[in-house]
Amino acid sequence: MNKHGGYFGNKETNIIDFSVNINPLGVPSSLINKLEKELSNLITYPEIDGKTAKEILGKYLNKKTEQIIFGNGATELIYLFARAIKAPKTLILQPTFTEYERAFKLSGSNIYHFYTYEENNFYINMDELLKSIKEINPKVVVLCNPNNPTGVFFEPHELRPLLQAIKENNSYLFIDESFIDFTEKSSVINLIDEYPIFILRSMTKTYGIPGLRLGYGLGNTEIIQKLNDIKEPWTINSLALKAVETLIEDEDYYNQTKKWYKSEKEFLLKQLSLINDIKIFSSEGNFFLCKLKNTTGKDLKKNLLDRGIYIRTCADFEGLDDSFVRFAVRSRNENEKLIHSLIENFKEE
Amino acid sequence: MNKHGGYFGNKETNIIDFSVNINPLGVPSSLINKLEKELSNLITYPEIDGKTAKEILGKYLNKKTEQIIFGNGATELIYLFARAIKAPKTLILQPTFTEYERAFKLSGSNIYHFYTYEENNFYINMDELLKSIKEINPKVVVLCNPNNPTGVFFEPHELRPLLQAIKENNSYLFIDESFIDFTEKSSVINLIDEYPIFILRSMTKTYGIPGLRLGYGLGNTEIIQKLNDIKEPWTINSLALKAVETLIEDEDYYNQTKKWYKSEKEFLLKQLSLINDIKIFSSEGNFFLCKLKNTTGKDLKKNLLDRGIYIRTCADFEGLDDSFVRFAVRSRNENEKLIHSLIENFKEE
Repeated sequence: MNKHGGYFGNKETNIIDFSVNINPLGVPSSLINKLEKELSNLITYPEIDGKTAKEILGKYLNKKTEQIIFGNGATELIYLFARAIKAPKTLILQPTFTEYERAFKLSGSNIYHFYTYEENNFYINMDELLKSIKEINPKVVVLCNPNNPTGVFFEPHELRPLLQAIKENNSYLFIDESFIDFTEKSSVINLIDEYPIFILRSMTKTYGIPGLRLGYGLGNTEIIQKLNDIKEPWTINSLALKAVETLIEDEDYYNQTKKWYKSEKEFLLKQLSLINDIKIFSSEGNFFLCKLKNTTGKDLKKNLLDRGIYIRTCADFEGLDDSFVRFAVRSRNENEKLIHSLIENFKEE
Repeated sequence: MNKHGGYFGNKETNIIDFSVNINPLGVPSSLINKLEKELSNLITYPEIDGKTAKEILGKYLNKKTEQIIFGNGATELIYLFARAIKAPKTLILQPTFTEYERAFKLSGSNIYHFYTYEENNFYINMDELLKSIKEINPKVVVLCNPNNPTGVFFEPHELRPLLQAIKENNSYLFIDESFIDFTEKSSVINLIDEYPIFILRSMTKTYGIPGLRLGYGLGNTEIIQKLNDIKEPWTINSLALKAVETLIEDEDYYNQTKKWYKSEKEFLLKQLSLINDIKIFSSEGNFFLCKLKNTTGKDLKKNLLDRGIYIRTCADFEGLDDSFVRFAVRSRNENEKLIHSLIENFKEE
């Protein structure tokens, strides 16, 4: 099992965890108020197909309920999609979130990697990708957009040649948009009728509630039906289903979050850029990938932990090595502490 | 997908749902207090392996953490076990909960049924079962104990010959003890070191919190490791993990629940026995299977729904037909309303 998902070491010490993002606005108070009232309703089963929540989300996204599937976090839907499609071959754009490979491997798929490179700032060479698809003939192509951990984003028009090739190939694009709320750019959501796309979304990243487990998928009715055919019942707890309406309606929280991340990302990007010992990559996510010029991720992690800061090393990402680390965007105070600690650390080395 | 899990029809009408059990004590107030304080902690991911909760449960059950696995409800663990063991053949004792067949089928297993019969009050003919195991050679035998929907229970000493045969056969007993808290009889929990048993438990049935999704499995470390190897990360939400300690410590609620079910089951059994048009089977669960002598489940369901009562028909259970229905044990008032409605209904027919 993956060992990430934040720092779970000694709870006595006050470690600032830069391996996961924490929305500094905290859990929306509208949601806390709602869930407080729902606790006594835990006595009933979750609505089995999440029908009510699907209708609410469908109306909000302007999609039919048959184009929506809820998951116990986005993670359930990665594994469910892999099992539903049973792809003989899966092509994953790397480096990226490690659960895709595990999920498709466990479903019996042969895994192929299409690498993006540091020298291109991890952008896709589309011609090379199309050539790979022709050669490999994968049933599924996996793209995280914005990508974790590189922060790279492709706009719908940039993805058109890929989508066309996938359609002609009678295969699927699995596109993880879990971090889409952290960019101002556009989703492929309006293309799901035209192309065989499965879009993965997280409702818990933007709203700072990963403990609740709530994700959803979007696709044409045929794709969603394939997933529903093998879905396990009652996977989404009642509180998560009840949260959907409250979260959608809390536009203030959403807008404040977007605004705050936009300015805080600019601040952190600028400050990290000023540190000579690291190279920072621009990011459409709520995190930054950095390359260490004179130390290893392992050493930096150890040194920063002594200063009360926990970071994500990247050696386990396919196509990265221990010279890369990832920093989440946290509160101003915490970000300043990170910058300060990095400066102090490199000064001492 | 299974379509059960309670009544989700017109919410405007006040339907009493006898298809699912509702602990009339409601959600434990100790839990509501605890979870109210935990809502703001939804901002962090659930502890990925549920380590803290496992230590608490392990201490309570006197088992090692390596012998415990948590699930997003017991349901996750049915599917996970099926995928982990990849049994070429699975033998299911019928009639029983329909998810076992679906889970093992989806994992690619060939399904065999061993039937128990009304004329034996759905007890197992152990000699016949052992003969079947020898003939079929299943990798997994599935038993629900107490069984849903028949209410039949087997004590550990009665299961010894079965366990011995399974051990010699190098196969597994999957035993669902989700309803064990509703009987005074003993679990097989002390046999998990001696035999290849996987015990499934629900923490939400006794405590009336199916909306929260919390189950666990017990087995020897080798079995649990097999499941952990393919488990999806973060499946159990933070609130469910935090609930473990509070539920275990709330002995008052547990004892009151046991005491109340014991006396209420006696009441309902006696009252249902007095109705000539149905035959009731004794039950170690918190529900009763009944056979209708002069009508179908479909008709009775329709007629009772007109009286504001929703019941579980049983035609979809392997080995039962539409002459069977299942009634949950609910509050005294509600049980009286059921009895009254049944009497009125049969009077009119």
